[in-house]
Amino acid sequence: MPVTPVVPSVSTLRPLGLDEVHITGGFWAHRQEVNARGTLAHIGARLESEGWLPNFDLAAQSRVSEGRLPEGRRGREFADSEVYKYLEALAWETGRTGDADLEQRLRATVARVAAAQEPDGYLNTAFGRPGQPPRWSDLAWGHELYCLGHLFQAAVARHRTAPGADDGLVEIARRAADLICATFGRDGNPGVCGHPEIEVALVELGRALDVPAYIDQAALFVERRGHGVLGDIEWGRSYFQDDVSVREATVLRGHAVRANYLAAGAADVAAERDDLQLLDALRTQWETTIARRTYLTGGQGSHHQDEAFGEDWELPADRAYSETCAGVGSIMFSWRMLLATADPRYADLVERTLYNVVATSPSDDGCAFFYANPLHQRVPGAVPDPDATSPRASSSLRAPWFEVSCCPPNVARTLASLDAYVATATDDGIQLHQYASCAIRTTLPSGAEIALDVQTGYPAEGRVRIEIGADAEFELSLRVPAWAEGASVQVAGVVDAAAPGVHRVRRAFRRGDVVELTLPVAPRVTRPDPRIDAARGCIAVERGPEVFALESVDLDGFDDVADAVAGAEPIAHDGQVWLPIARRDERDDTWPYAGAESAASLTPVEMPLVPYHSWGNRGPSTMRVWIPTA
Amino acid sequence: MPVTPVVPSVSTLRPLGLDEVHITGGFWAHRQEVNARGTLAHIGARLESEGWLPNFDLAAQSRVSEGRLPEGRRGREFADSEVYKYLEALAWETGRTGDADLEQRLRATVARVAAAQEPDGYLNTAFGRPGQPPRWSDLAWGHELYCLGHLFQAAVARHRTAPGADDGLVEIARRAADLICATFGRDGNPGVCGHPEIEVALVELGRALDVPAYIDQAALFVERRGHGVLGDIEWGRSYFQDDVSVREATVLRGHAVRANYLAAGAADVAAERDDLQLLDALRTQWETTIARRTYLTGGQGSHHQDEAFGEDWELPADRAYSETCAGVGSIMFSWRMLLATADPRYADLVERTLYNVVATSPSDDGCAFFYANPLHQRVPGAVPDPDATSPRASSSLRAPWFEVSCCPPNVARTLASLDAYVATATDDGIQLHQYASCAIRTTLPSGAEIALDVQTGYPAEGRVRIEIGADAEFELSLRVPAWAEGASVQVAGVVDAAAPGVHRVRRAFRRGDVVELTLPVAPRVTRPDPRIDAARGCIAVERGPEVFALESVDLDGFDDVADAVAGAEPIAHDGQVWLPIARRDERDDTWPYAGAESAASLTPVEMPLVPYHSWGNRGPSTMRVWIPTA
Repeated sequence: MPVTPVVPSVSTLRPLGLDEVHITGGFWAHRQEVNARGTLAHIGARLESEGWLPNFDLAAQSRVSEGRLPEGRRGREFADSEVYKYLEALAWETGRTGDADLEQRLRATVARVAAAQEPDGYLNTAFGRPGQPPRWSDLAWGHELYCLGHLFQAAVARHRTAPGADDGLVEIARRAADLICATFGRDGNPGVCGHPEIEVALVELGRALDVPAYIDQAALFVERRGHGVLGDIEWGRSYFQDDVSVREATVLRGHAVRANYLAAGAADVAAERDDLQLLDALRTQWETTIARRTYLTGGQGSHHQDEAFGEDWELPADRAYSETCAGVGSIMFSWRMLLATADPRYADLVERTLYNVVATSPSDDGCAFFYANPLHQRVPGAVPDPDATSPRASSSLRAPWFEVSCCPPNVARTLASLDAYVATATDDGIQLHQYASCAIRTTLPSGAEIALDVQTGYPAEGRVRIEIGADAEFELSLRVPAWAEGASVQVAGVVDAAAPGVHRVRRAFRRGDVVELTLPVAPRVTRPDPRIDAARGCIAVERGPEVFALESVDLDGFDDVADAVAGAEPIAHDGQVWLPIARRDERDDTWPYAGAESAASLTPVEMPLVPYHSWGNRGPSTMRVWIPTA
Repeated sequence: MPVTPVVPSVSTLRPLGLDEVHITGGFWAHRQEVNARGTLAHIGARLESEGWLPNFDLAAQSRVSEGRLPEGRRGREFADSEVYKYLEALAWETGRTGDADLEQRLRATVARVAAAQEPDGYLNTAFGRPGQPPRWSDLAWGHELYCLGHLFQAAVARHRTAPGADDGLVEIARRAADLICATFGRDGNPGVCGHPEIEVALVELGRALDVPAYIDQAALFVERRGHGVLGDIEWGRSYFQDDVSVREATVLRGHAVRANYLAAGAADVAAERDDLQLLDALRTQWETTIARRTYLTGGQGSHHQDEAFGEDWELPADRAYSETCAGVGSIMFSWRMLLATADPRYADLVERTLYNVVATSPSDDGCAFFYANPLHQRVPGAVPDPDATSPRASSSLRAPWFEVSCCPPNVARTLASLDAYVATATDDGIQLHQYASCAIRTTLPSGAEIALDVQTGYPAEGRVRIEIGADAEFELSLRVPAWAEGASVQVAGVVDAAAPGVHRVRRAFRRGDVVELTLPVAPRVTRPDPRIDAARGCIAVERGPEVFALESVDLDGFDDVADAVAGAEPIAHDGQVWLPIARRDERDDTWPYAGAESAASLTPVEMPLVPYHSWGNRGPSTMRVWIPTA
């Protein structure tokens, strides 16, 4: 079974795992290195200093002698889940690299978690002890099942990267999952968790441990939802997707992380049940969400108040929430749809979201993070105190930690398992979905021994060189992104045009053969659908999968991107992207609505843009992705 | 002393009160009638059924026999204040009309409030009893001083409309104010209330009862603020204006109601102290706020999350919060600045806010209200259950009541005292600020006996006819709104152009003389400052002070304002305003960002617009004020 987060029993594409794909260099390899060396240690230290890991120690002591909880417990009700996401990231990273230090950290952490588990399998530091609310007493907001879902994903990662390891993580998960099935089964507690996550996790744990009951329980949770089981709240039942059943919904709505996690779990259920009706409902939801409720960056969620999707076309750049975790959730959902359908649009969105949301969040040293990812920063953010804990979506620069700190470990587990999102296989084919320098080794059911070595400077460069390392007949499928009009593929000296979609090369490859994909990565101008009111009259600049931004630190002659006007076409030189930018004449500070059109005499000057994922790394700045035209 | 909410000791303009100005017909008279007959009874019934008035009965019983509070108390911590705003509205309305039924309701309500007051003057149903938090234990969020502020404004209204009345309301206020001064004086508790209101109220109570200590206390509260006395919160100290002192602030920020109430109180303090430095700071704040943080409607507040102003130019139409109470607060602030400076821009904003925020909130029958006033409704709102209590800013149609129901009584007290905002006097002049059919009778310090009868169909019509009812020499000042290019004034058959600002007519008027102001009320196109990103590429239509909107129920051939494109110029016929509107070609539901510009072949058809204040009265509809151009 592949060493990867998602292994459907039934799928169109079979994922290739960490044992089959190794990212070897370039954009993502660098970020994985920072993740391994910087982020994981940072998270471990913060989980300790914030008390979220010590909560487990207190819980363990409470089992022996009462009285350390609830008083000593720190953090929000879902703090346990950050420990589990950290464990998941450690498991993938040790699986990827065999790092002994990380392995030791993982084992030490698991031991502390294990000590807190109740004899019947229950595990949560915020519920169930004297002075705490009883177990399952607040399904809407308590996050008990959500936390256990993250525990299960960690256990799956451990099970697949270190089968038979004696640390006990898998057994902790199994006991908790058995308790959930006994408690929430068909004749048991009819509730669901306010924050989806248990669904996707139970399916995968069931797949990993071959326990169909876990998958049945996940299917139950998916089907129960949408019938008002969670009660009403000020923001409406849509907040936790309890307004409409998954089968009947036509678009993602409500809290953007919840919505994507649920959709990912439902996609897993659809795969296990070969349920085409459910899959079709999810496809419709995905398509409408992408067409009407997704930012250019792939980011999702327009509301700060409820961290939710807005209505169709409600995509403000300045108040974009675009939570990092919603990006991770969107990748989870899209990846499962890709495995089920092989439709390259899903991989397009995964790529866009990886480059412009996931890669945007961490700082260069991996020790500070964006929680929200707006497309327009109106006021230069403050530099957060490195020792402080920030509100989650403050308009600061990247912050080391948050009161709700879901994003850092979510980024960490995604980067640590990223190799698993590069390629898939079919009976007699390999599909490349993401372009990174990497080595791929696998055997196809057809018997073909696959050895591919990919070299590329993507995304800055458009050339992707794939060298065949072993004689084999198979079909090599290359995703041609939707933006890549004019791409070409050269095989054995013959150049073919490669239209957006999937380009297939089937042949009896010989060792040393080279397939070369050339993607057009000249900077290009992008315009919004006219119904996206917040971006009307603006252009954005993209290069390959990267969205670009104008930062005020790069302005010449003025100091606020509010006054910038874009002219003409972007160009690339000196490895940078440049756009003619003029300064709009200042207007008086008077009533800003008038009958006359403002006439402007604008002389644009070439100014540099930066990849959106790298903005905010040079100190406080204003920034915008959508730049008004004259 | 004039019968009016604000009577500065020192001012440029002297307000004329309800005893001097009577609105006699037209737009506002109709709304005052609905307010008196519909809204006040509705509010009274709801205060009863929601338990917010019965809270006082419970508090009174608790004083005799313990145990009815806190268990029985209902509503949020500031529920008392809605009772006080209701009392204020009743006082103004009885003062305006002498309505005996309302007088009886007022007296009955005061009696219940009186019974709950503690012997030392303390009065709040949520604090201070066994089982309740101690008095003044939560200044940041407890709203104790805020509630008493509204009590004082009610007492001022009663004192001025029924001097010497034996109901006791004024004495209740006096006892509470004395307690506040004893508790929060210069050597006492150094705190301030998280929600400003006590400042404006203490000044006025001090003016009304001639107690300088109350004004001193208000000045203390104003000066203390802005020095971090309230603690930090996720949204920042700016939320309750505790980030920067009032003297140093350059713009309104944070919670929009709090910001305006504080500014109004500070303006009162500046007037009493003749403090030109403070006044100048407030002028700057007002000017920047108007230039950069105010909607076309006069509405203020761009954030749902913290009900706050956004950054400069952050004025989303769809997520506009524009709380009705922020509009009331803005009028409070602007009115005080007008009295202090005579600058007609303040009256311009009062007018704009009255027509497009205050008049928008209540339904035609005065028994349902908008809490938030967005300029773009993307999804048809649901019709609220008439018996239910709605979340405050749901995207429903006007709702009968809210969990936080500050807006209905705030509208009620504003409409009941509206006559007091029509005109002012100087030593030898009368200034007309708002145009409504009305009768004005007063005597100037110069000795001139003023009798003016104003007749107008404004704002639908632009002619304002002012007939002089008594021989007198004085200066008649007419505000010419900033939008009124081409206005004219006819006096004794001679027509003069009247430029925006103030047009003055000084002469020895004879009884029967007529001054006729003609304001241009043809519909006009308005364009946003190019830095207002959310309205870029759009026009709005205005007629006089009224902003217009396109509602989907009026669309011909399609059903969502998202697809509307505006062409050419608006016209008026059949008493309605029409704009050529085309339907944009539908696009596929795919990725909405593309390189190509969308070409559209659009054939506009004349469609009716409605005054924004009347939208949402014909059932669920989508709506927009800013309409994209091709």
